[in-house]
Amino acid sequence: MLRLGPLAAAGRLLPAGPRLEPPRPAGGRVSFLRCWPPRLPGPVGDGRPLSQQVRAAANSAGGSGGRGLALKTPKGTRDHPPAHVALRDHLLAAVVACFKRHGAAAIDTPVLELRETLMGKYGEDTKLIYELQDQGGELLALRYDLTVPFARYLAMNKITNMKRYHVAKVYRRDNPATTRGRYREFYQCDFDIAGQCDPMIPDAECLKIVHEILSDLQLGDFLIKVNDRRILNGVFAICGVPESKFITTCSTVDKLDKVPWEEVKSEMVGEKGLSPEAADYIGEYVQLHGGLDLIERLLQDPKLSQNKLAKEGLGDMKLLFEYLTLFGITGQISFDLSLARGLDYYTGVIFEAVLLQQENDHVEEPVSVGSVAGGGRYDGLVGMFDPKGRKVPCVGVSIGIERIFSILEQRVKASGEKVRTTETQVLVATPQKHLLAARLKLISELWDAGIKAEMLYKKDPKLLKQLQYCEDTGIPLAAIVGEQELTDGVVKLRDVARREEVDIPREKLVDEIRRRLEP
Amino acid sequence: MLRLGPLAAAGRLLPAGPRLEPPRPAGGRVSFLRCWPPRLPGPVGDGRPLSQQVRAAANSAGGSGGRGLALKTPKGTRDHPPAHVALRDHLLAAVVACFKRHGAAAIDTPVLELRETLMGKYGEDTKLIYELQDQGGELLALRYDLTVPFARYLAMNKITNMKRYHVAKVYRRDNPATTRGRYREFYQCDFDIAGQCDPMIPDAECLKIVHEILSDLQLGDFLIKVNDRRILNGVFAICGVPESKFITTCSTVDKLDKVPWEEVKSEMVGEKGLSPEAADYIGEYVQLHGGLDLIERLLQDPKLSQNKLAKEGLGDMKLLFEYLTLFGITGQISFDLSLARGLDYYTGVIFEAVLLQQENDHVEEPVSVGSVAGGGRYDGLVGMFDPKGRKVPCVGVSIGIERIFSILEQRVKASGEKVRTTETQVLVATPQKHLLAARLKLISELWDAGIKAEMLYKKDPKLLKQLQYCEDTGIPLAAIVGEQELTDGVVKLRDVARREEVDIPREKLVDEIRRRLEP
Repeated sequence: MLRLGPLAAAGRLLPAGPRLEPPRPAGGRVSFLRCWPPRLPGPVGDGRPLSQQVRAAANSAGGSGGRGLALKTPKGTRDHPPAHVALRDHLLAAVVACFKRHGAAAIDTPVLELRETLMGKYGEDTKLIYELQDQGGELLALRYDLTVPFARYLAMNKITNMKRYHVAKVYRRDNPATTRGRYREFYQCDFDIAGQCDPMIPDAECLKIVHEILSDLQLGDFLIKVNDRRILNGVFAICGVPESKFITTCSTVDKLDKVPWEEVKSEMVGEKGLSPEAADYIGEYVQLHGGLDLIERLLQDPKLSQNKLAKEGLGDMKLLFEYLTLFGITGQISFDLSLARGLDYYTGVIFEAVLLQQENDHVEEPVSVGSVAGGGRYDGLVGMFDPKGRKVPCVGVSIGIERIFSILEQRVKASGEKVRTTETQVLVATPQKHLLAARLKLISELWDAGIKAEMLYKKDPKLLKQLQYCEDTGIPLAAIVGEQELTDGVVKLRDVARREEVDIPREKLVDEIRRRLEP
Repeated sequence: MLRLGPLAAAGRLLPAGPRLEPPRPAGGRVSFLRCWPPRLPGPVGDGRPLSQQVRAAANSAGGSGGRGLALKTPKGTRDHPPAHVALRDHLLAAVVACFKRHGAAAIDTPVLELRETLMGKYGEDTKLIYELQDQGGELLALRYDLTVPFARYLAMNKITNMKRYHVAKVYRRDNPATTRGRYREFYQCDFDIAGQCDPMIPDAECLKIVHEILSDLQLGDFLIKVNDRRILNGVFAICGVPESKFITTCSTVDKLDKVPWEEVKSEMVGEKGLSPEAADYIGEYVQLHGGLDLIERLLQDPKLSQNKLAKEGLGDMKLLFEYLTLFGITGQISFDLSLARGLDYYTGVIFEAVLLQQENDHVEEPVSVGSVAGGGRYDGLVGMFDPKGRKVPCVGVSIGIERIFSILEQRVKASGEKVRTTETQVLVATPQKHLLAARLKLISELWDAGIKAEMLYKKDPKLLKQLQYCEDTGIPLAAIVGEQELTDGVVKLRDVARREEVDIPREKLVDEIRRRLEP
């Protein structure tokens, strides 16, 4: 029996659509496009359009609370409303799927670390570490990344072989440009391979992972810059930089992607105390970039090829390019001598992925983003924690999920699509008064059968209001029990989008709902 | 063509088994038993038995690191090795599935909050808040729970209606008994309903949620104690306690589940300054517990029924029991006047779930656990943040996932089962030397096809070692390319458990792997 319900004349029809689901874990690499952007019925979250929810949440300035309280989140942090979390979970699922595809296991470490664990690992960035107040007991700090805690974990548990991923928040007391998706609290998604391996095999896999993730997410063209700390150190050595200044010179070189060479040179000479000649000589090298041809040329360089470290680094770089050729990804790889990476702990290959342009055909305000992934080899870090200094060679990659999120967020805004943030399948409704008991009994049966069900928290809600709630929040079905239905032992099942109702015998309701919701 | 591989004579055969998967999101409530304990092939994580991994990780004492560093996690915190994370993710998935079944959306808030946001919300527990050092800028603290940040979020975004869940870590500078699964950093799993509702409908749903989760997880018998702050305050009032001492008297009453009445009384008289007569009078009430009968009796109590607050609370408690009867869960509910809950912000119904006994037939060392869920109504908290003091009534529940985890961890230990912590489907192997390029090319094809694949990070690993790795880590298939296979354009696909090998044309390999791995 088909009947039209009370909303049929209202003229509002929302299309049904697929739910936002994480990428399928097995059976073929998931194209992010296939499930993106998610087309979902009706508004969600707190009911306001996503763009408004996002704006409200991003606005960490807030108002002022009761009793003159500052009503805000700490500087550089933000709340994530339901539409944010749904999108972020979707994104994280894609990254984790790639890590699992490469055989990694997950670990988790505390957000808090002993202060001494973090000290001496981050060079100039040590000042960005959040320290906890001395409240009696140990001196603590918030983790700055997931790499140092991983090294501490390996040393503490005497593990010499491990492929692990870790997706968690890290903390940096920076002054980030939050408009660029940079925050003081942000997610890192790390994949690392620890253990004695033959040269460049795990290093090449890390680059493959970056390539897979950026391809899967379809963020547009990207470039992965690669360099080696040993090559940089070799360059510094032949240019006459004393070894004690290698690390600090590295952090100056690292600024080359943001400021012109002249500024970098002036920092080298002014702040770091190099001679102008040494700086110029360095400049000739660190402005080079290319592929296998450049590696070959530098291997022939009369001075550089005499330096043991540089020669090792160049030899490994050649091997790396050989493996990347087998992976078929050299088209997006650039050997770039200006890449230095700020952190102290790198000892070999280093890399960083940047987006070259955005797919911003549909984007109103393009977001400018920097690097979206980075990493490298750190063979000495675990040894810094081991009581006997035993080294465990490691290489790893960190995916800059927050910046990627900013891009996707802009896409959602631009598309005007609504992201459904709940998964409710059925609203249990009543058409007359004094039927709360009937609603409670029915919804309880549905929950116990594993059906995702809601009801309004009113004793006697109007039927129109109940059906409106379905349309507003994208609930596909309504199970309606009125006096007649109770007498007849049936439930009226309403297809919200089609506005069709049919009586279902009570004992067959669960099966019918499952049948209707099959994909 | 079937052939026996080189390991056939070694006599080690590990049974294949199902992977550890999260409960299915749709199509019937998931029995935790159906997928529990997980039977999985081979050892995992870092290769050591789970019990050893767990012991190592739980041992926060650690050794001493390089250069005399303390090699440990902060007091009251711990690392989670892969087997832990796999089990925890499984557990969290079951809890989140229940929250979604009830129509909640997820939000996320920062771990850091302004210090003033947290002050004045937790009564005596305020001293347990971790404060950050003043490093210039705002004064910050780590969140103590997820409830106060939720209230801050609602007020800041002027949201008056929301059903949300939040699963995240919170921080308490407590001195916890870590053997009981209590830590200074731990997960909370919160579900809350904010908004103007008819009495006791959302409150009843929170209790239903606790009942569903504890039933789903099959943790053994449990009891949900229920009380109402208004009833307690009414009791205090008729016993002559001044209103200014209600909250502090509440926290004393709350200790009744841990210490005998005499001690509670002596704290009331000694520390809180009540008269011995008042304390004894309170004692007559707070030692009562029962069901609907007790509610009816107290509604007839000549003094208590004269108190406006108590009468309201008792009326609502009666209504709550009516709804819980419709849900069919009163068998596990006890109206218990000794339940007070420590926190300041509760204003109405409060509840706490305790396990009555453990299913410890197979458990070597039973874990003693306290409450595994708790919550209540807090109608005033959002108003504390709103500039105009506008109230948003709220009720919510928090699932004590860490204590539940301790119980499940003991079960795994006792069962001797191995939990597989990776999902690798295929190991790409070579039987002769100088075939690294062939392995890299093949594994790259598999990754690009979405197959979860690993290879050893050696140029020329021995075949036996490669196959041993499959057995050790539970990888079900090996794809072997040797010189002959390369010439023939095939790959030898080996079923690791059965030790059967068959040649597959290279172009059909991906399909064949997918076919073999179908459930």
